[in-house]
Amino acid sequence: MKILILGASGTIGKYLVQHFSKNHEVICASRNDKENKVNIEEASSIAQLFEKVGKVDAIICAAGEAKWGYFNELSEEDFYIGIKSKLMGQVNLTRLGLNHLNEGGSITLTTGILADDPVVKTSSAAMVNGGIHSFVQALALEIPAGKRINAVSTGVVENAYQKYQSYFPGHIPIPMSKMIHGYVRSVEGKDNGQIIKIYS
Amino acid sequence: MKILILGASGTIGKYLVQHFSKNHEVICASRNDKENKVNIEEASSIAQLFEKVGKVDAIICAAGEAKWGYFNELSEEDFYIGIKSKLMGQVNLTRLGLNHLNEGGSITLTTGILADDPVVKTSSAAMVNGGIHSFVQALALEIPAGKRINAVSTGVVENAYQKYQSYFPGHIPIPMSKMIHGYVRSVEGKDNGQIIKIYS
Repeated sequence: MKILILGASGTIGKYLVQHFSKNHEVICASRNDKENKVNIEEASSIAQLFEKVGKVDAIICAAGEAKWGYFNELSEEDFYIGIKSKLMGQVNLTRLGLNHLNEGGSITLTTGILADDPVVKTSSAAMVNGGIHSFVQALALEIPAGKRINAVSTGVVENAYQKYQSYFPGHIPIPMSKMIHGYVRSVEGKDNGQIIKIYS
Repeated sequence: MKILILGASGTIGKYLVQHFSKNHEVICASRNDKENKVNIEEASSIAQLFEKVGKVDAIICAAGEAKWGYFNELSEEDFYIGIKSKLMGQVNLTRLGLNHLNEGGSITLTTGILADDPVVKTSSAAMVNGGIHSFVQALALEIPAGKRINAVSTGVVENAYQKYQSYFPGHIPIPMSKMIHGYVRSVEGKDNGQIIKIYS
């Protein structure tokens, strides 16, 4: 399979690249990639990426951010950081990606446990994750036959746990080797419209 | 209680006004209201409304829209209709409303069954509803003590069923007299951070 991974240089992305490279042809793209530079906040940047890489069998998005902060300190503009990036970035990737997906291909988006089990300072981050969950379920009802879309939603992954654990008191860190199953299931299985949750 | 109802002229809003007027002081606001005109897409319009009405004991939002359409016919701009209105309109109402809420007061947002059980043409509408669900749960973790936020999520309400039933094959219409319980529970009860679901 030819698998395009966006956010390939991030904590999750790096692990995805390492894993899928074993048995698939992986194309890495990220904000800082020399060859396949992409800014998912700009639909035109995503379009340029697809013009370059052509058709693929799977698209995985591990890119996208949102602003963390106490609700009473978040401005309207702060909310739009997540909306433009993790929310509409993934929606636009899906809009454009569907046309560059081979028959039987899949799109896998990344969300996170905040959608269901938020923590303090995540009113914006939780919102964009929850939006993507409902988006994926809705799109699955009308996605062209033979194409699939899912989201993988995990708890704080182990490789980010040290950095983020103070934000997630009592949350169970998810080993990378466990997290990967969500993506493998979406890419190599037949699921469609699923929110693949790995929370413990 | 002094209850501010936004979207007071809509299908749900009208019923809310009729119900809560029996035992409370209701202030109606809507896009077309002569006295309390408000456009929830503009934070400045919401701010003006609060300047006029002052402090209240409960804010109910039954305003907000999103564009319906097949995903392959929805543009990026189409998605932003729902983002600016039903999503960020309700977030901004919450941001500004918290400062105009008396001790013990509540904010009640309106979403809908699409967040969990979408139908065709609702990739955008489902997305904004799902976003609000996660937002409400996250905000509840840090809302000032004594203030509350909830969302009411119902199936297609009976008074809108005739117009929308072709979009909701097999969905169970929710009587207005049943729907109202969700709002009463949020306003008069003690729930906080709840998505009050009335789907059948």
